[in-house]
Amino acid sequence: MLSEDKSMSIDYKSLSVDQLIAELSALHFADSIDIINELDINERVTLFERLPLDYTVELFDRQELHERAEILQLMPTKRSVAILDAMSADEATDVFQDMDEATRKHLFVLLKPYTRAEINKLNHYPDGSAGSLMTTEFIAVPSTWTVKQTLDHIREVERTRETVYASYVIDPKTSQLVRAVSLRNLILAKPEDAILEAARKNEPIAISPYTDQEDVARLFRRHDLLSVPVVDDGAHVIGIVTVDDVLDSMSEQMSDDAYKFGGLEAIDRPYMQMSFLEMMRKRGGWLCILFVGEMLTASAMQYFELELEKAIVLTLFIPLIMSSGGNSGSQATSLIIRALALRELKLGDWWRVVLREIPAGISLGVLLGIIGIARIFTWQLTGIYDYGEHWALVAATVGAALVGIVTFGSLSGSMLPFILKRLGFDPASASAPFVATLVDVTGIVIYFSVAALILSGTLL
Amino acid sequence: MLSEDKSMSIDYKSLSVDQLIAELSALHFADSIDIINELDINERVTLFERLPLDYTVELFDRQELHERAEILQLMPTKRSVAILDAMSADEATDVFQDMDEATRKHLFVLLKPYTRAEINKLNHYPDGSAGSLMTTEFIAVPSTWTVKQTLDHIREVERTRETVYASYVIDPKTSQLVRAVSLRNLILAKPEDAILEAARKNEPIAISPYTDQEDVARLFRRHDLLSVPVVDDGAHVIGIVTVDDVLDSMSEQMSDDAYKFGGLEAIDRPYMQMSFLEMMRKRGGWLCILFVGEMLTASAMQYFELELEKAIVLTLFIPLIMSSGGNSGSQATSLIIRALALRELKLGDWWRVVLREIPAGISLGVLLGIIGIARIFTWQLTGIYDYGEHWALVAATVGAALVGIVTFGSLSGSMLPFILKRLGFDPASASAPFVATLVDVTGIVIYFSVAALILSGTLL
Repeated sequence: MLSEDKSMSIDYKSLSVDQLIAELSALHFADSIDIINELDINERVTLFERLPLDYTVELFDRQELHERAEILQLMPTKRSVAILDAMSADEATDVFQDMDEATRKHLFVLLKPYTRAEINKLNHYPDGSAGSLMTTEFIAVPSTWTVKQTLDHIREVERTRETVYASYVIDPKTSQLVRAVSLRNLILAKPEDAILEAARKNEPIAISPYTDQEDVARLFRRHDLLSVPVVDDGAHVIGIVTVDDVLDSMSEQMSDDAYKFGGLEAIDRPYMQMSFLEMMRKRGGWLCILFVGEMLTASAMQYFELELEKAIVLTLFIPLIMSSGGNSGSQATSLIIRALALRELKLGDWWRVVLREIPAGISLGVLLGIIGIARIFTWQLTGIYDYGEHWALVAATVGAALVGIVTFGSLSGSMLPFILKRLGFDPASASAPFVATLVDVTGIVIYFSVAALILSGTLL
Repeated sequence: MLSEDKSMSIDYKSLSVDQLIAELSALHFADSIDIINELDINERVTLFERLPLDYTVELFDRQELHERAEILQLMPTKRSVAILDAMSADEATDVFQDMDEATRKHLFVLLKPYTRAEINKLNHYPDGSAGSLMTTEFIAVPSTWTVKQTLDHIREVERTRETVYASYVIDPKTSQLVRAVSLRNLILAKPEDAILEAARKNEPIAISPYTDQEDVARLFRRHDLLSVPVVDDGAHVIGIVTVDDVLDSMSEQMSDDAYKFGGLEAIDRPYMQMSFLEMMRKRGGWLCILFVGEMLTASAMQYFELELEKAIVLTLFIPLIMSSGGNSGSQATSLIIRALALRELKLGDWWRVVLREIPAGISLGVLLGIIGIARIFTWQLTGIYDYGEHWALVAATVGAALVGIVTFGSLSGSMLPFILKRLGFDPASASAPFVATLVDVTGIVIYFSVAALILSGTLL
């Protein structure tokens, strides 16, 4: 029953183009696209030349179809233009951006004036804005119409799948958005009702083309929307964002976040399809930056070389203490990144976070400090290891340093997303590796300072 | 225009219940809910007793309304039962699960038999399954009907918002799902058409109640769905999952993942609303586990105490070398977690990943090794720091150790998600702190083993 199973049963690569055309029509679009994506580029060009135009357009309207721009470049110009003219404006714009300069110029002048205007309009919204997600095909009707007029209009102009989520009622004089009406409302109303009677009673929810995609997603969740109109400063509808675009943008967001958390650059391509060089670039860059930052730990330790020589026993706990700072820091960072993203916290709340993180850090530090001290006592008293004459003072140093480092880690880990956001960066860039690097150097300074304080006169 | 602005302009807390009732009806549900959530629990009870029943039910159908179970427990039994009977079955089930045992038993027997049956049905699907997301209200019509009959039926039985995404055509003999038909198809068809003619031509996409919510989300994205029928083993429709539930589950998933990446337990409550104790529990648990794991680094270093004493200069680079292993490990883990989640990789692909990660790790290790060696040469030759007589051999040790550790980090970081998945855990639990802890101990062993090899006879 799951469509996943269907495309697997036949070996589509062995079929002729004619057989393939016959087979595809019985499948879901997503399955057809999977099969087509597997073909050679030339086979795909031949296939799309011979498939019915409207079916071809439906396939080209899906981002899942690979190398749309390349295929169109290889097809006869007339056919490519016909496909681009019939596609959703937002998808046509995306495809256009992927073409090489020469083809783009060549094809652009051959498009219908309407398509050209739409592409020009959509081209200038920044990536990740509602404007870049929206489509310009939607149904708008004057507020003087009836339900029947609206339904007839939908039956007449309904071209693409995306237009049917809702219709927008426009003031015939000012052209401003007045109300939104869902298909459901239209069906439930009497045909002779005025459209304003069938529409939702409250002012429609609308967004600006510059609304961030995360805010768009939040609005969809908040109001259980299927689509939302995008309006300009004069309250004129210039497009709609639909729930399928929001789902896609959320899932991209999830991928990007996962990479940020891991401390590497976002990668569009599947893992196995990345070239080795590309993977090196994406991973190597961050790894080198972190490495150079972490070099400061060597400098910090060089600074404490005298202490190191006198009390080698202290070096045993360096990794343990440093990693505790890093771990508490990345916990705090994750908490705050999430709270900022969900708008539970605002930039101005930073001091409230400070007031929570200081006691939290101290408590967690005390917790780890007790475990650390217990470990040293146990090893010493059972004879597993001898930490030397002043072992009790070493234990006290480790315990006290843990309190300081975990507190510092929690505090700096929680403030980092605020600072990044304040500077205009994405708070999610504060990955665990980044926080750990930041806290490591301080960790060494805190550890040896605490040691100097407690062990001065004995070990040091 | 954005609804966000609306609820802010009036101080709703100063209004009487009557005034509030008048104000609420002009607002979007989400805004009304925000205002209601701010009221005392007693005010909320009074309000919900006096608001019209259908409006109350619409509010109770939203998860965003806080303390639904508590409010129902405080309201007169008759009213609570009326609300529960009219709510969506999935939401009623959720509310019911939040009630205390006594109230639940008391109210349950008073519900309509239909509601009781639905709640019993929904109760037994595991968290995160399609069954736990689905609602049991949907429109099913026999395949012998016409479009007009279907539309009339929708107008008649249409009760909740969720029923209008699509209608399902059922074989009148076997009661099995035959086709799905969207509202759009119904409107575009002629009223006298047979419903099977208006329906989509291919077999409907359907899922099992045990399908994982991540797979459900993937299916929605793949086919741009607004709803999907949930069918039992006999192909009978038992419910539908709608796109708004998928959006909610995706956004929960994003939060949970963020916490996992940071190495702490998932937290449902906003950061500022968490009690201090709760926060300690969620953070302290993981922090202690990581701390105890990291203690092995101290044991590893104790093992190499002789080497440490002879070559203190080696300790200077311990933090640098360990963190490089951790960072390369968490990069590899992030890549593989994502690739597994997006089904770019299957469990059986682990060896293909090994074949990529070994050369990747070696290359990245050589890169960092060169930077590390350059650093030691620069400091030594410019006189910033004196690494001793055998400084060139120390540099070689650091460089060689980095190659070994980064390779090991990349390899173990990439294999960890596979192992977790194989054992039935969520691969996303392999957070950066977890990977770093794993790699740190090995890092020390590799570092000192390489040192023993290179420096034996000179420093060691």
